[in-house]
Amino acid sequence: MLTSSCRRPMSSMATRVIRFVNPQGQVCVGQTPPSSSSSAQLLQSGDGLGSLTIKHEKEIVQKLLPPVVPTQVIGIGLNYRNHAKETNMAIPKHPVVFFKSLGSVIAHGEPIVIPRIAADPLEVDYECELAVVLKEDCRNATIENALSFVGGYTCANDVSARRWQSVHKGGGQWCRAKSFDTFCPLGPCLVPPSVIPDPQALKIETYLNGECVQSSSTQDMIFSVAELISLLSQDTTLPAGTVILTGTPEGVGYTRKPPLYLKPGDKVEIRIENIGSLVNPVVAASAL
Amino acid sequence: MLTSSCRRPMSSMATRVIRFVNPQGQVCVGQTPPSSSSSAQLLQSGDGLGSLTIKHEKEIVQKLLPPVVPTQVIGIGLNYRNHAKETNMAIPKHPVVFFKSLGSVIAHGEPIVIPRIAADPLEVDYECELAVVLKEDCRNATIENALSFVGGYTCANDVSARRWQSVHKGGGQWCRAKSFDTFCPLGPCLVPPSVIPDPQALKIETYLNGECVQSSSTQDMIFSVAELISLLSQDTTLPAGTVILTGTPEGVGYTRKPPLYLKPGDKVEIRIENIGSLVNPVVAASAL
Repeated sequence: MLTSSCRRPMSSMATRVIRFVNPQGQVCVGQTPPSSSSSAQLLQSGDGLGSLTIKHEKEIVQKLLPPVVPTQVIGIGLNYRNHAKETNMAIPKHPVVFFKSLGSVIAHGEPIVIPRIAADPLEVDYECELAVVLKEDCRNATIENALSFVGGYTCANDVSARRWQSVHKGGGQWCRAKSFDTFCPLGPCLVPPSVIPDPQALKIETYLNGECVQSSSTQDMIFSVAELISLLSQDTTLPAGTVILTGTPEGVGYTRKPPLYLKPGDKVEIRIENIGSLVNPVVAASAL
Repeated sequence: MLTSSCRRPMSSMATRVIRFVNPQGQVCVGQTPPSSSSSAQLLQSGDGLGSLTIKHEKEIVQKLLPPVVPTQVIGIGLNYRNHAKETNMAIPKHPVVFFKSLGSVIAHGEPIVIPRIAADPLEVDYECELAVVLKEDCRNATIENALSFVGGYTCANDVSARRWQSVHKGGGQWCRAKSFDTFCPLGPCLVPPSVIPDPQALKIETYLNGECVQSSSTQDMIFSVAELISLLSQDTTLPAGTVILTGTPEGVGYTRKPPLYLKPGDKVEIRIENIGSLVNPVVAASAL
């Protein structure tokens, strides 16, 4: 499932970069037209970042991988005005920063597994986020040059176990609650900055079992992508491969009455304009 | 400077593993006797973890490196009873988890740089911590088998910018305040579990300009090393190379009256029994 906004003509520049395993078990980098996810044109670069040349070879996509292998995953809390409002939190004066573990990253199509220690009662929540991938080491970026460090954009689901995120179980720190295995779906593709000239003008949505539960625009962000990169990099090296999850808009499950949590059998879809659609089923830990 | 407790006879098993650069600029793994830090016996393994064989070759240590290249750095807050008391915080019922950035890691001897945005007024604090390095991927470890995943122990300084750690500047999340470049000194050596049969019986101290400012024992930990590894790995993969900073005892600078913060020209030393002494000077960002 891909949004129609992804359906742009192929050009000589790679626009929808995927990482995948071919039938021989080899990891490949390629690009697919949105209308077909079963085969891809191979690309020359090994990491999906930087300049990529399209080869005139096609390859079967046996299994999609996350479009990037992150060196670290940084999350930003409360970065949409209407989400800060729904959580009754003040608009932050500085970005609220947490990390997600590397082990939490999964691909489009892979299941989000409800952890055994977060299964009863339900507490696992969805968060659609624009993910920004840095293509080179970044330190002391200015707001003006910050976007030059961006290698691409993808969709992220900042899956969160709300009781483990609470003061009672998490001591007020969010990292544990957001770092369970499978809690960071990324994908389906990496879209280069040439396709996203303005990351602050993208429609961003979550669909839970086909029903729209989050619908906003990245223009509601409190700190823009450029501001985030600049602020995060002050006196701090962000290594190439850093993935920044830029916050979620209003509509998350735990602020609803009654709360709306993920349960086995659900299907969560994150859609971002000009990027695509990241779909993951939800399963119980015992189902594995 | 090494504690006398490190001065144990060399055996056929590597006991003080270091990573370093030799005069030819090559990265080497070796071991040094505590009485000499200018040369090392070379070891066969490339990563300082797992079984290591001592070669009968010596090499000049041109520059010490951190004893491990972490895949991720997990920190634990409020894990010593007397430190929880001095901060007026309740004893946690679950480990309080945060992450430090990979870019924050530095070696013994390298300077801790006061960030420009944390320089005036002073706010940068020291925290001596026992660091645990995992040698293989770990998931759903039990308390009983948790220590079998440990490749070694080293000293850490969980350097923290206290205003950036506050609700006002950090939004209550600690990751940003603890992730500035140079904020995670690790070293000087990795000591295998064979030398540390009981990680809960180690003297741990900080000396600031030669004066003892933290002095405790790892037996004051609320969650033991084995409990931490087990709890952190529930439904969560901790990849090989994960470094866990296991919390700091009482005596940190910001709880003192008046507060005691790091300033350019200071020298901070972390000493842990049977591991060694991690010494770092403090410099201003402008001094670089």
